[in-house]
Amino acid sequence: MEAIMIYMPAVLAIIGLVYMWVKRSWVMKQDAGDGKMKDISSHIYEGALAFLKAEYKLLTLFVIGASIALAAIAYFVPTTHYLIIVAFIFGAFFSALAGNMGMKIATQTNVRTTQAARTSLPKALNISFGGGTVMGLGVAGLAVLGLTGFFILFFHYFMGGEWTNTEQMTVVLETLAGFSLGAESIALFARVGGGIYTKAADVGADLVGKVEAGIPEDDPRNPATIADNVGDNVGDVAGMGADLFGSYVATVLAAMVLGNYIIKDMGGDITAEGFGGIGPILLPMAIAGAGIIISIIGTLLVRISSNDAKEAEVQKALNIGNWVSILLVAIASYFLVTWMLPSESITMGFFVGGQEGFEMRSISSLNVFYASLVGIIVGGVISAVTEYYTGLGKKPVLAIVQNSSTGAATNIIAGLSTGMISTFFSILLFAVAIWASYAFAGFYGVALAASAMMATTAMQLAIDAFGPIADNAGGIAEMSELPSEVRERTDILDSVGNTTAATGKGFAIASAALTSLALFAAYVTFTGIDGINIFKAPVLAMLFVGGMVPVVISALAMSSVGKAAMQMVREVRRQFKDIPGIMEGTGKPEYDKCVAISTEAALREMLLPGVITIGFPILIAFLPMIFGYENVLIAEMLGGYMAGVTVSGVLWAIFQNNAGGAWDNAKKSFEAGVMINGEMTYKGSDAHKAAVTGDTVGDPFKDTSGPSMNILIKLTCLIGLVIAPILGGHTEGDIPNLDETAVISTAQSSDDIISKEVKMEKKTDADFVTAYVTVVRSDNGEEVVESFEFEGTEAEVREKVGEIK
Amino acid sequence: MEAIMIYMPAVLAIIGLVYMWVKRSWVMKQDAGDGKMKDISSHIYEGALAFLKAEYKLLTLFVIGASIALAAIAYFVPTTHYLIIVAFIFGAFFSALAGNMGMKIATQTNVRTTQAARTSLPKALNISFGGGTVMGLGVAGLAVLGLTGFFILFFHYFMGGEWTNTEQMTVVLETLAGFSLGAESIALFARVGGGIYTKAADVGADLVGKVEAGIPEDDPRNPATIADNVGDNVGDVAGMGADLFGSYVATVLAAMVLGNYIIKDMGGDITAEGFGGIGPILLPMAIAGAGIIISIIGTLLVRISSNDAKEAEVQKALNIGNWVSILLVAIASYFLVTWMLPSESITMGFFVGGQEGFEMRSISSLNVFYASLVGIIVGGVISAVTEYYTGLGKKPVLAIVQNSSTGAATNIIAGLSTGMISTFFSILLFAVAIWASYAFAGFYGVALAASAMMATTAMQLAIDAFGPIADNAGGIAEMSELPSEVRERTDILDSVGNTTAATGKGFAIASAALTSLALFAAYVTFTGIDGINIFKAPVLAMLFVGGMVPVVISALAMSSVGKAAMQMVREVRRQFKDIPGIMEGTGKPEYDKCVAISTEAALREMLLPGVITIGFPILIAFLPMIFGYENVLIAEMLGGYMAGVTVSGVLWAIFQNNAGGAWDNAKKSFEAGVMINGEMTYKGSDAHKAAVTGDTVGDPFKDTSGPSMNILIKLTCLIGLVIAPILGGHTEGDIPNLDETAVISTAQSSDDIISKEVKMEKKTDADFVTAYVTVVRSDNGEEVVESFEFEGTEAEVREKVGEIK
Repeated sequence: MEAIMIYMPAVLAIIGLVYMWVKRSWVMKQDAGDGKMKDISSHIYEGALAFLKAEYKLLTLFVIGASIALAAIAYFVPTTHYLIIVAFIFGAFFSALAGNMGMKIATQTNVRTTQAARTSLPKALNISFGGGTVMGLGVAGLAVLGLTGFFILFFHYFMGGEWTNTEQMTVVLETLAGFSLGAESIALFARVGGGIYTKAADVGADLVGKVEAGIPEDDPRNPATIADNVGDNVGDVAGMGADLFGSYVATVLAAMVLGNYIIKDMGGDITAEGFGGIGPILLPMAIAGAGIIISIIGTLLVRISSNDAKEAEVQKALNIGNWVSILLVAIASYFLVTWMLPSESITMGFFVGGQEGFEMRSISSLNVFYASLVGIIVGGVISAVTEYYTGLGKKPVLAIVQNSSTGAATNIIAGLSTGMISTFFSILLFAVAIWASYAFAGFYGVALAASAMMATTAMQLAIDAFGPIADNAGGIAEMSELPSEVRERTDILDSVGNTTAATGKGFAIASAALTSLALFAAYVTFTGIDGINIFKAPVLAMLFVGGMVPVVISALAMSSVGKAAMQMVREVRRQFKDIPGIMEGTGKPEYDKCVAISTEAALREMLLPGVITIGFPILIAFLPMIFGYENVLIAEMLGGYMAGVTVSGVLWAIFQNNAGGAWDNAKKSFEAGVMINGEMTYKGSDAHKAAVTGDTVGDPFKDTSGPSMNILIKLTCLIGLVIAPILGGHTEGDIPNLDETAVISTAQSSDDIISKEVKMEKKTDADFVTAYVTVVRSDNGEEVVESFEFEGTEAEVREKVGEIK
Repeated sequence: MEAIMIYMPAVLAIIGLVYMWVKRSWVMKQDAGDGKMKDISSHIYEGALAFLKAEYKLLTLFVIGASIALAAIAYFVPTTHYLIIVAFIFGAFFSALAGNMGMKIATQTNVRTTQAARTSLPKALNISFGGGTVMGLGVAGLAVLGLTGFFILFFHYFMGGEWTNTEQMTVVLETLAGFSLGAESIALFARVGGGIYTKAADVGADLVGKVEAGIPEDDPRNPATIADNVGDNVGDVAGMGADLFGSYVATVLAAMVLGNYIIKDMGGDITAEGFGGIGPILLPMAIAGAGIIISIIGTLLVRISSNDAKEAEVQKALNIGNWVSILLVAIASYFLVTWMLPSESITMGFFVGGQEGFEMRSISSLNVFYASLVGIIVGGVISAVTEYYTGLGKKPVLAIVQNSSTGAATNIIAGLSTGMISTFFSILLFAVAIWASYAFAGFYGVALAASAMMATTAMQLAIDAFGPIADNAGGIAEMSELPSEVRERTDILDSVGNTTAATGKGFAIASAALTSLALFAAYVTFTGIDGINIFKAPVLAMLFVGGMVPVVISALAMSSVGKAAMQMVREVRRQFKDIPGIMEGTGKPEYDKCVAISTEAALREMLLPGVITIGFPILIAFLPMIFGYENVLIAEMLGGYMAGVTVSGVLWAIFQNNAGGAWDNAKKSFEAGVMINGEMTYKGSDAHKAAVTGDTVGDPFKDTSGPSMNILIKLTCLIGLVIAPILGGHTEGDIPNLDETAVISTAQSSDDIISKEVKMEKKTDADFVTAYVTVVRSDNGEEVVESFEFEGTEAEVREKVGEIK
């Protein structure tokens, strides 16, 4: 049993994918309606595919370019293997494939949901949530399959499928990082591009349609309406899917990297402990695999029985599925942790800084379970916090509604301050999470907290993707001029979908934040630096630069939406003027022109944020090299940058998402009517108009710039991790800097050397340095340990250490 | 000459204050107009004084409370002396006095400016700028006099007016920190309270007056108009004055603290080098003193000759004065630096982290001059960057104007993204400044860069305070129904004042940022910790918390303005309804009721931000103590918090100030007319209305929450500095933690011990520790050095070290 655990997660992923396929066939067999409905649905389907096709064309170029860059790294850095390129390409491909599958099912489920809503609300929920389930399992299944598949492959290729030592496992995991990098790169463009697409269409359609022409949302006479509906899928389905795909893979990878260091801390070999001696590395994969099956169970619980159900019942059905799967993950984590981790007490390095670097402490496997519980709890609480600040009928949204009565300005001020104040609990929660999960089980605990939280990704995505499907279904009902009870039923689903969209964003932020922390920890451990000391002026400077980048990326995303929306406005105005009979419904709007505008704008505008996101960490790593900075300092500078991006990025993500969500629901509050200064106020009032203004500002906040932050922080830390070997102490023959006395391992520098540990020391009051070197050599399969001690000037000692071959 | 240099800055400050008094008498002698003008002016004067009186009453309670807290610190921490309370009270008093004087002169200059503008623009400029000069010299003079005066006092009290050793000077400077803390505490309430006051009145007056009733700005029929004009003085004069007073004092103090460590790095005694051996400590004070005289010269250059002058000429006159004084400061710095610093090469500790902590390097005094040049350049460039992003006719403002044509939403999006994108160059500039000034002369260089930049504070404040005076003058002209050419003349001054207000805010941010960095450096040096390592989980958690606090403070400030403005709106509406003949000008509005609303709101709403600002650092320092955390770790956690607050606070300050400034000028652009889509568009158009909405959002951004950030980051770092001795390694008999091998000095633990240096070492592979102790003992005036070496278990060694008496 223990021996095959390495294959188990991949098998579970395949089971998930098979179930997905079955579910997909069931959805596709449902009635897709008739005539106009089919027509509109196929417009959306084709628009969405057209965008994906154009996007993938561009991304192919990017993947080729990035592959060349990776080849250069592999050429110069001995521990980076060429296989990283293969992993990168597959990571990108799997992520794109998952996005493509999700988009296809979502755009085909929408019309089937509309058709079902003609007769039955439970059936409409079944179908729309079924589409979401397909999406969720597709993403999670491919993520786990890809990651575990490549791990098995590299584990066999580099280590012959058996544990040898930490250094070789490091090579395996460094190569595997390519898969994660590929996935996250696609996520960058999917999130930013998708976000720009959807909001350019949405804002553009609203500004001319609703505001100028006075026609309702989703009116078929509005030429931008198809682009708007395509946008829901491009942004909320494909973008969110790629985001969580990336988080899922990166989190598990970071936990594996840190698991490898646990094995090292325990003496470098725990093969006697079962699981081929790689239990701490397998554990995060096992939790991920279990999460897929648990998510399937969760989705089965989402159902309602009454055709007269209201939002509350639908929400309850989703909540039951969600909470049961979270609970099951907690239980599964308990058994997996206690089963898979070394039975004896676990020795783990806790960072204390200073001369010692890491202090060895002994913890029980139960501690690791507690750490994973922290992650699960954070996932739940952050959703609750998000719901409080953005939910209909809650105090913050009601306050925004009240502030709408004195005009758009006070509405905007109230929305902005709601977004700002919402950072308070969220950030305190993260701070406690870092603290607690670290206190329980070191940085492995932080990474495992993230992994446990992400285990329900499939379920989370099913809930997330259900929203835009229901939204589209409503749009199709409106555009096809179906009876009003159909729209009423889809509106119930849509309204629930809006709430889940907001909480889903909270989950995505939390996952991105924890993932980044885990990657950050893996980075510091990889480079072997003595922590990141912000009292060094260059490191502090980079902390500032890192803090600035999320703000600038947000600005670029916002103004991109503004620009593209203006283009859309001009096109819609032109069509209203030039196409005869368009307003009477006799002239046919040119939907494809609006789709083309959104597509082109998204592709054009996502480039600069992409360049900044990828370019800055690379610049920070290589520019100081040219000026002769020491690698150790550069590694700290890059670390400072990563910390700055993460702290500021998380803040801006929370701020923008919650402000946007709160504005959205403040506007929606007017649909049912709200009490302002003792008077019931409805749609069409001045206060409602002010609320619409707030919502329009909030749109790019919550759907473009806000979500971009997730990718920015993860990708920044991932790029750091890939660059780490270049800056790190464990490249061939490298000697740690004099400032650093921590023990650092080097990879083999000749065939029979397994590891070389160098510790250098310089007394403050002396001119000479002392180096203590421990070399582990393989002598016909047996390990031989040799020790050396050198004393002399720095140059002398460095030469002697280098001579050990 | 050298011996009296310690008194020179105080003398220069007194000269500045005498000149101020002369200038004040001249202004007061000017014609204060007649009848209605006088009446309105005295309303403003009384409203302003009423606010100050109420504020000071509240602050007296605060000062008493804080004094008790300081007494507790002084009781428990041996190196903190009771005199810190005296310094604190005087710091608070001087800051309040400066604010009071500034407000008085500003509210009396306004009507004299109006009267002068009836005949002559050059005279109106002379008077309004004269009022600004009084304000500027009052603030700068009191700041320098207070700081240098208390330094002389403490230097004589603790050291007998002669250099003894670094430890005793540390006690002097720690006590002096009380002065800075007092000043900054007053600044907190003046900035936050003033900001809330001014915008509650402004937004409230606009919402009912301009938008609902359709009467122009400053119309005497609007009951909130006096409150609005009072607000200009409370926020822009008193608030800005207290802000810069605090920066000025804190910067010079931080440079003095770091100067003390230079003396230590050079062997602890440089009395042979002249200036009583305290040249590096006197230098920042000397530059500040010289800055006062230079500022007087600068103000003399501000004049125009033609009565037909336009904005450009007025702006040019101000620019000449400003640039000449900046240039003179650079020249003066060169001579002072090369004269006052040790003639031989200066030994200075550069932080490298790791085992060594600080690496000694030798630099020339020219390096220190270069560092101060960096500060001067940053001050100039940041103003230019601010002007670009907020200036009339510049690309960003024009873009916002264009985006106003599609409504308030796109205007808001454009303004927000302008504010965000403006962080790019500003932050890069700060990053380069940190890097460069540190590379030139270590953290002393960073502090001196800040000091040099702040040297022109008097001139900067003169330019800043001139704005609200001109604004008020225009208001009085309008309310007194003077002929339109009077208003035209004051409008020219007002328009220039708006530009200088924006650039002044840039200067205030830059000064706050550099001040915080200098304080941050002083903090780390004070505590003697091994830097701040954010790879320690609790430190990283505090970095997150620190990043969050500025966002939450901004939210509180924003929503306070919202709440108070709503109250104001209700009161104005009530008066419009209840007072017969008010709209016809026959009924007299109850101005005092609106003044009371603003006053009460400001005092009430400034409490929570104040509590958070002061409470968080104290909580972070003391809460972990209760849980038994080690002091060294707590010091790092507090340092992480300070870094988080600074990075995030600077970002949010720039974002909010520039967004607000840009919105303001986008709205103003419509006054002269703007070209949108080929059509000239003016005031009253839909686009203008959208721009007004943006401006209303921007008002609290740029005048309340944005400026609050300056105080938040400075005060956070100052509180850290005051707490530092509690956490630091240099309290009596304390032994550095085992992780820390840096050499740490202790204050004397018995009468004849001058210093005790302990270095403890623990080999990673050994159970015992080694302590090397160097004691300098005073034996009848002669210094005797004793050395000890102990080896044993940690407890044994600690006991033996403690026994040395």
